[in-house]
Amino acid sequence: MRQQLDAIFKPRSVAVIGASTRKGSIGRETVRNILLAEFNGKVFPVNLKASVIQSIKAYSTVLDVPDAVDLAIIIVPKENVKQVVVQCGEKGVKGVVVITAGFSEVGAAGEKREREVLEVVRKYGMRMIGPNCFGIVNTHPDVSLNATFGKTYPKAGRIGFITQSGAMGEAIMNIARDLDLGFSTVASIGNKADISSNDMLEYFKDDPDTDLILMYLENFGNPRNFTEIAREVSRHKPIVAVKSGRTSLGAKAASSHTGSLAGLDVGVDALFEQTGVMRVDTVEELFDVAQALSRQPLPKGNRVAVVTNAGGPGILATDALIRNGMEMPPLSAATVKTLKKHISADASFANPMDMVAGAGGREFEITLNAVMNDRKYDSIVPIFVPPITIDQVEVARCICEGLKGTKKTVLACFMGVGLDSVGMDYLRAHGIPCYIFPEAAAKTLATMAKYRERIQRPRGKVRTFKVGKAKVEKIVNQALADGREAIVSDEAIDILCAYGIPAAPYRYASSADEAVKAATRLGYPVVMKINTPPILHKTEAGGVMVDLRTDKEIRKAFRDLKERIRKLGEKGEFSVAMQQMISGGIETVMGMTTDPQFGPLIMFGLGGIYVEVMKDVTFRILPLADEGARGMVRSLRSFPLLNGFRGAPPVDQEIIAETLQRLSQLVKDFDCFSEIDINPFIASPDGKLSAAVDARFIFKKP
Amino acid sequence: MRQQLDAIFKPRSVAVIGASTRKGSIGRETVRNILLAEFNGKVFPVNLKASVIQSIKAYSTVLDVPDAVDLAIIIVPKENVKQVVVQCGEKGVKGVVVITAGFSEVGAAGEKREREVLEVVRKYGMRMIGPNCFGIVNTHPDVSLNATFGKTYPKAGRIGFITQSGAMGEAIMNIARDLDLGFSTVASIGNKADISSNDMLEYFKDDPDTDLILMYLENFGNPRNFTEIAREVSRHKPIVAVKSGRTSLGAKAASSHTGSLAGLDVGVDALFEQTGVMRVDTVEELFDVAQALSRQPLPKGNRVAVVTNAGGPGILATDALIRNGMEMPPLSAATVKTLKKHISADASFANPMDMVAGAGGREFEITLNAVMNDRKYDSIVPIFVPPITIDQVEVARCICEGLKGTKKTVLACFMGVGLDSVGMDYLRAHGIPCYIFPEAAAKTLATMAKYRERIQRPRGKVRTFKVGKAKVEKIVNQALADGREAIVSDEAIDILCAYGIPAAPYRYASSADEAVKAATRLGYPVVMKINTPPILHKTEAGGVMVDLRTDKEIRKAFRDLKERIRKLGEKGEFSVAMQQMISGGIETVMGMTTDPQFGPLIMFGLGGIYVEVMKDVTFRILPLADEGARGMVRSLRSFPLLNGFRGAPPVDQEIIAETLQRLSQLVKDFDCFSEIDINPFIASPDGKLSAAVDARFIFKKP
Repeated sequence: MRQQLDAIFKPRSVAVIGASTRKGSIGRETVRNILLAEFNGKVFPVNLKASVIQSIKAYSTVLDVPDAVDLAIIIVPKENVKQVVVQCGEKGVKGVVVITAGFSEVGAAGEKREREVLEVVRKYGMRMIGPNCFGIVNTHPDVSLNATFGKTYPKAGRIGFITQSGAMGEAIMNIARDLDLGFSTVASIGNKADISSNDMLEYFKDDPDTDLILMYLENFGNPRNFTEIAREVSRHKPIVAVKSGRTSLGAKAASSHTGSLAGLDVGVDALFEQTGVMRVDTVEELFDVAQALSRQPLPKGNRVAVVTNAGGPGILATDALIRNGMEMPPLSAATVKTLKKHISADASFANPMDMVAGAGGREFEITLNAVMNDRKYDSIVPIFVPPITIDQVEVARCICEGLKGTKKTVLACFMGVGLDSVGMDYLRAHGIPCYIFPEAAAKTLATMAKYRERIQRPRGKVRTFKVGKAKVEKIVNQALADGREAIVSDEAIDILCAYGIPAAPYRYASSADEAVKAATRLGYPVVMKINTPPILHKTEAGGVMVDLRTDKEIRKAFRDLKERIRKLGEKGEFSVAMQQMISGGIETVMGMTTDPQFGPLIMFGLGGIYVEVMKDVTFRILPLADEGARGMVRSLRSFPLLNGFRGAPPVDQEIIAETLQRLSQLVKDFDCFSEIDINPFIASPDGKLSAAVDARFIFKKP
Repeated sequence: MRQQLDAIFKPRSVAVIGASTRKGSIGRETVRNILLAEFNGKVFPVNLKASVIQSIKAYSTVLDVPDAVDLAIIIVPKENVKQVVVQCGEKGVKGVVVITAGFSEVGAAGEKREREVLEVVRKYGMRMIGPNCFGIVNTHPDVSLNATFGKTYPKAGRIGFITQSGAMGEAIMNIARDLDLGFSTVASIGNKADISSNDMLEYFKDDPDTDLILMYLENFGNPRNFTEIAREVSRHKPIVAVKSGRTSLGAKAASSHTGSLAGLDVGVDALFEQTGVMRVDTVEELFDVAQALSRQPLPKGNRVAVVTNAGGPGILATDALIRNGMEMPPLSAATVKTLKKHISADASFANPMDMVAGAGGREFEITLNAVMNDRKYDSIVPIFVPPITIDQVEVARCICEGLKGTKKTVLACFMGVGLDSVGMDYLRAHGIPCYIFPEAAAKTLATMAKYRERIQRPRGKVRTFKVGKAKVEKIVNQALADGREAIVSDEAIDILCAYGIPAAPYRYASSADEAVKAATRLGYPVVMKINTPPILHKTEAGGVMVDLRTDKEIRKAFRDLKERIRKLGEKGEFSVAMQQMISGGIETVMGMTTDPQFGPLIMFGLGGIYVEVMKDVTFRILPLADEGARGMVRSLRSFPLLNGFRGAPPVDQEIIAETLQRLSQLVKDFDCFSEIDINPFIASPDGKLSAAVDARFIFKKP
């Protein structure tokens, strides 16, 4: 595949297939862009009517081009795309970029059109980007290809950029230019009929010109592939993504925009968490993070020094750093001693180190150099607010000088220097990202530190447990044969037990004597409910008796239930189901829910109101590794409750984690369920006392 | 006071009192700034050594100035400030702005220096801004005063700006210039020795040139005054504030920076919530909001239409709007019908209305005009991402044209148009704020809508209840006379009862018969604990018996407790205290905590882990109005629990709100307590069953 994508991104010859309309030649802008960027290969305009495009001879069809053609950029009206792609196939073109819109994003007719084009592409063994895209860019000097219709040719650099929205692509390239950020390759993948974001991720993984991958996504074509690929790629290169369509309305808009289903956001978060992709909330954050990652190493830890010539911004940075989980230890005594020799006594030798307004380049250089050599810090944030008397370029130069050779992460802030700041330009050109607002520098640093933590965390293993799969198959098949919509009650508990999930088992009795015997074996106290004849809404019908503590209470309960059945006019054999009543411990909820895109998600939360009111619940996509399961437990806001609250002993978290993994295995083995609820699962300090009390397996609708 | 401040901000003559150092003349920049801004009065440089400053005759002292002087700007070395201020006083100067630093912000010596200067100012009846400030600006054409040492003279406009940090002041003015935001008056108030942010708020309240007030604050001089003043001012003009020092480390930095105690952030949030001040998290948001408020009306409701030529940014805006609580109803049928006549069928006639990339000025004008006339919306967000073929100024012009005369709130986004966008300039010049990122426009709109909701909410009344103050005085005085540190147990309950706070009362008994009688009067079940002899840690010592349900159990409990006392070797008369055991209902916690700056804060939350683990608790400063108390209850994340969770009846919220107000009155009446805990206060659906079960009043340390 790499070879095929290379033919697209590193072509030796490009045909630009446009058309003529009353308004002029479509495709002219793309030819001009290719010429302006000084493409290192040959370009052949193709146009049925025009014989010259941008001073270059144009051919009627791609078949008329005398040379071989690696890549065709197609911008003809949507009705003609298929025919043009056929011609490309006949010509032996290796890849096509279809810019034309009006395909799957506009409904059924467009979908059909897209399918037909794709069939042609497949038939001729070509690859396609688009349709409905903005084009592609490769800034490598050996290539220098700008096959877009936009007006921005981005700076060369080491960022690979994948965008699903053409407009976002152009906007992002424009803003990047202002921030002096360079791209290796830009791929506007549009409707992703053939080449997907997953393909691009794999391509960038091995691309020697790309160090950092940015993505703007509206949906996932194949989220399960994405998981595997992103997990692998993010081991080598950071991936930063804006995924829009977070809210259901946004998702609806995204869906009409891209002609595909958009995922539940909870799935996206789980996916990114598990795959090591950095998700940012806004496009602005995308830039903040991209600036930092393309110029600086990840911080080795959370300890930050802030060095400033102005108190206010120093405090704002401090607030934002601490709020985002960073630490700001005071300067070491040795550093303070060094600094006091050189810096005005009016300065505050603390962290933030406020050198006060008189400070110029010299003070920045001395202080940053001392802080750089202070082992207490992993990162440094220099902040400069320009007084009239200080030259900002001189300060920028001294910041670079003072920090020369540092391995610490450095993010600077120049506040109030104007939009076209020469000082900021100097810093960026010398590898130091620079922000206008101290909070942005702080938040970005925290994002980097969290990312480092995440990728350094052991990924864990996906364990395979020995389970009674056959037994579950039997239960499931029977239920399906019965036409039932769900498996509940004792059968549900049996399924859990078969998968080694601790659960309070049921025992049955059809006489008071048997009931006493069963209760003795279960251990008091017990819960008793009517088993047969089957009645719905047992609790409401008074068919459930709880907290039975003695043989006598058992006999009475049995009699009472039988009496109730008789009064209800139910016939058939009477029997009860009994379960030990588990109390103490903490009620948790686990389960599985099906995301339309991501498939099954494993869920965990604290029982009752924590899930329902406080929305304190966490999800993971499959497969769930051991570390992932432990992470689920720890990631709850209410985790302190599980970890020994108010001197209580912590619950056995390992048993919860193992249960989640066994549930994950069950979900993998049986794809017939749309939803599984284990509610409550009682978590106790003693693992042996932890158990599921009730469960429910809902079948997918046929 | 207004007159005195007018002398400072609208002077007819200004003396700039500088000094000469080896580096040159201090104060020269300020004189130059005054000249460059074409001050509409006279400026007199004062310098002991130089006879000419910026081509103007300089006088040795202010006393030598031949004319009257309204305002003196003082930039001499800190040691000379006092003497110069004395001379100003003798000269009859009305106000001084002390730019010189080295006062209370640098410790004890500086504090003394500041006090001495302030004494002189008071003695001569002058007013002072600073010390340690950046200067002042008044852009009114009748004044045109730029008495700062910065390099930015802000654009004239209708924003009043108060900043505690000089550097932040300059930075903010610079950034404002880039955003084409204009200021009426800028006051860098520095250490606020005399004129405070409160004074400035009052000044701006009546200033006909100011419509909007921005503040950068690091601490509050007098938070109680701030409450009253801000509450009053925000009725007339919006106040937007960045308060730094949010985190304790940030607060520490703020404190060393400004030489004063910084408040607990929880107090600040309570304060802003109650006073109608809009608090923003970052300086960037300050600008986002300032842009909007200075150019657009507040939205009348939460319903927004997004109109875009690019899907991606439309989705990002939608996500951000929904996430921030806004609504995006679909276009009305009539609007769709109108639009379909004019707009390409490829467009998505939804909300966001995506006109697709070909859309130009005409499409924006038609669509915006239709949406403006659609009654379903309160606000409109036009988003434009420039394709190469479309002229952004033409689009901007058409946006203005299409929306001409609208009363809806309009915030635009031009994405990827470059830093110096002529399109954005056009919109801003025509009263439409314009953002680079769609999320910023969305979040700002949501901030405005929340603000409108807040200021429209009835403020409520501070009620005064008839209470048994004398009874509480007696208890308190006795406890103080005994040298106790706290009032607990039955006396604490007595205090609550005296203030009409429902509480489970105590009854006492020194015989088993008395105990049975007491229990009968309280109503079973009851709790019994040892009353005398006094022993500590009653629960741990086995001195508390709970859930006593019968006369028999009472007698046994009495005997058992007496026996335990004997075994502990305690002597003296034996008696027990009994309380009805209240169960059912929901455990809440209320109380008072003392903030070092704000004084007492009333607290409310749900019992146990909600407060401790989930940090779900709310605070208010005094006085607490009825609406404020109700707001406290509603503002908890766990509020659904109180409001009828899972079909349970809602608890009586009015009794909680009334209890909070009675507590507030108690706190006002007795300022001897540093902390009050009512824990638990059981909230029941039936107000009559709601009651405090335990309470604790901790005295301030003497």
